[in-house]
Amino acid sequence: MTDDTYRDIGYGAMEIGFGERPGILVVDLQTGFTQPRFPLGGCELVHRAVDNSARVLAAARAAGVPVANCYTAYHSKGDMLHWKIGPVREEFFEGEPCTEMEPRTSDPDYDYILRKSAPSIFFQTPVAAFLTKHRVDTTIVMGCMTSGCIRASVIDSFSNGYRTMVPEDCVGDAGEGPHRDNLRDVGRRYADIVSSGQVLDYLDEVRKRNS
Amino acid sequence: MTDDTYRDIGYGAMEIGFGERPGILVVDLQTGFTQPRFPLGGCELVHRAVDNSARVLAAARAAGVPVANCYTAYHSKGDMLHWKIGPVREEFFEGEPCTEMEPRTSDPDYDYILRKSAPSIFFQTPVAAFLTKHRVDTTIVMGCMTSGCIRASVIDSFSNGYRTMVPEDCVGDAGEGPHRDNLRDVGRRYADIVSSGQVLDYLDEVRKRNS
Amino acid sequence: MTDDTYRDIGYGAMEIGFGERPGILVVDLQTGFTQPRFPLGGCELVHRAVDNSARVLAAARAAGVPVANCYTAYHSKGDMLHWKIGPVREEFFEGEPCTEMEPRTSDPDYDYILRKSAPSIFFQTPVAAFLTKHRVDTTIVMGCMTSGCIRASVIDSFSNGYRTMVPEDCVGDAGEGPHRDNLRDVGRRYADIVSSGQVLDYLDEVRKRNS
Amino acid sequence: MTDDTYRDIGYGAMEIGFGERPGILVVDLQTGFTQPRFPLGGCELVHRAVDNSARVLAAARAAGVPVANCYTAYHSKGDMLHWKIGPVREEFFEGEPCTEMEPRTSDPDYDYILRKSAPSIFFQTPVAAFLTKHRVDTTIVMGCMTSGCIRASVIDSFSNGYRTMVPEDCVGDAGEGPHRDNLRDVGRRYADIVSSGQVLDYLDEVRKRNS
Repeated sequence: MTDDTYRDIGYGAMEIGFGERPGILVVDLQTGFTQPRFPLGGCELVHRAVDNSARVLAAARAAGVPVANCYTAYHSKGDMLHWKIGPVREEFFEGEPCTEMEPRTSDPDYDYILRKSAPSIFFQTPVAAFLTKHRVDTTIVMGCMTSGCIRASVIDSFSNGYRTMVPEDCVGDAGEGPHRDNLRDVGRRYADIVSSGQVLDYLDEVRKRNS
Repeated sequence: MTDDTYRDIGYGAMEIGFGERPGILVVDLQTGFTQPRFPLGGCELVHRAVDNSARVLAAARAAGVPVANCYTAYHSKGDMLHWKIGPVREEFFEGEPCTEMEPRTSDPDYDYILRKSAPSIFFQTPVAAFLTKHRVDTTIVMGCMTSGCIRASVIDSFSNGYRTMVPEDCVGDAGEGPHRDNLRDVGRRYADIVSSGQVLDYLDEVRKRNS
Repeated sequence: MTDDTYRDIGYGAMEIGFGERPGILVVDLQTGFTQPRFPLGGCELVHRAVDNSARVLAAARAAGVPVANCYTAYHSKGDMLHWKIGPVREEFFEGEPCTEMEPRTSDPDYDYILRKSAPSIFFQTPVAAFLTKHRVDTTIVMGCMTSGCIRASVIDSFSNGYRTMVPEDCVGDAGEGPHRDNLRDVGRRYADIVSSGQVLDYLDEVRKRNS
Repeated sequence: MTDDTYRDIGYGAMEIGFGERPGILVVDLQTGFTQPRFPLGGCELVHRAVDNSARVLAAARAAGVPVANCYTAYHSKGDMLHWKIGPVREEFFEGEPCTEMEPRTSDPDYDYILRKSAPSIFFQTPVAAFLTKHRVDTTIVMGCMTSGCIRASVIDSFSNGYRTMVPEDCVGDAGEGPHRDNLRDVGRRYADIVSSGQVLDYLDEVRKRNS
């Protein structure tokens, strides 16, 4: 039961490729996940993702590419889903410090900042309407956790009809195993797994085309 | 980077538990995945899932529990998503043999049979309205692939506010690794991983309560 | 072309009736629509709706019935839809005074307060998940405008599988014509048009049953 | 309480205008609404809409513009919504004659034909993903009934971020009053009310640009 099993029956049969109009989706780069003072904030791969995402975001903004940047928060226990993650159940409420946007990766004057209430940045949020308005055909998904909200956001990006790109060094997780497992699963079905370098090259082309 | 990493920071902090009104969601038990003559139809874990799901479904129908049973198909290439799986891209069109419901697990006179166009049984289908009409608070998710459409359906079931139960011997995949990886990921976040035996016991209680 | 045309061919063939578990949906009772100092805030029928809704809401909260209470706001022009209403385009941004909740009808300690970005309270918001979690089968829709966001919210409530009730004196509009036209249209298709009195009687029954 | 009331406070402040990439949405032009042998099939304004829509559709297909063409049907009573329209409750089931596509306006080899289960062509259908894949920014909505499924589809088209155009002679209803009332309501908020002539001119430009 190796990767070959999947390849042999037709998984990962082709690459999707970048399209013409990209949009950036940043998932859950909020202090609760990016700053070590919080229970879920000490993950090395997430810190790496913040650094790389910041670089990609600077290029995206310079190229005039739309950016949607979300955080997870609930109004109160009444609208909380049946989460099994302790710190999410107890602390992820609107107004709590753990729901503040990570300053290195968010720019409230440029980005569309939005709250979400489920793993996916698309689930019951207006982000698809935002992408439609900007005529995006290609999404670049960054943030955390690869095995949680990134996985969910990638599935939904694909399901909404986008070419979906995941720069693997711009997404992070608590453990390297689940990080890799999920890139493997989505990379053979829904999305191209790329690097921040490839995305930077692509954004450079977009910038030149737009200017 | 073991499972402890996640447990230590609060993942898998509690079980969700069965609620009062279950609904069954059967995902992609269509011949293209259940019958060996098709490229994706030879997976042992899926055959096991068919057998176990058939038993659970018989009990669910006897108890009057609503069943939604879906298959994946497209009208034509024009509405096909950017799939990377060869046989899906080439064959999963309405009317093709691979889109017929598996007879061991579907009952068109009892089940709500529906077509879906994305990994999740919820994504842009009326299944949530069907569950609402039947006042379901607990979903039991069965079918295939654990690392594809089951994963997506479990995320959406959770996101829609349901108590979500995955009987691990009623879902299957091409490989045991991705099967286990995905049960691990969703079991620490969104759903309880149970067995068909536990579901049968629960459905027996429901049947007694309803009769 | 009278109302009979529709009745003769089968519109308005039956009433839906209240179900077992109600939920209240309050649409756009934000200061921009409820207070005369704002361009859209001087509508008499809306002021009447605020008064009547406040009474129904007090009863609903006393009965332990879930309440979702929404306002419309955008992050910036980038995520604004193609609205043709001047004051919405120019002023309905998060943080603007016109987006504050009307104090007579909102209770942040009890209600689920949420932002929406489209006419319907359901459109790309988590409100359906909130109703599912509380096992609601009947929605009671109040607020404004009958010919705008109420119409849209009623359609979506119906489409999501709920028994949908519109107390006609708890919804309002700028003009009596469009107010009546829209109650007519939805009342023959999707919803029962009732009065605040009927809703209060029903909530009283619910309160007794729950206590 | 005239139209001036609305204009004075800022409704209908501007026109939206056609965008760059149109997509056609045809709503419920199925025999149950287009052929007089059915209870809901005798409406003159709908017959007019069929004729005009057929002309627009021929031009759209010649110009290579994507067309989504839907009908309403349920699997069984179990997934039927709480409709108040007799003939819909009793007859609109998959496989019934009233759910067949009107031949004058549908082309299964060109159009994306899809089933819907609620008033709006968007509600829990994959049509938005189809439009995204084809990078549509402008929808042209045709079909019936103006005061039912057209109204709902226009709201959702707007809510999804599209420039929404309604050629008034390509939509129809049982009564002229509700037809006009609904064009008035959506025309001051969400959509431009145009004529089939204007749409034909626009499609001609698109065809020239594309060829």
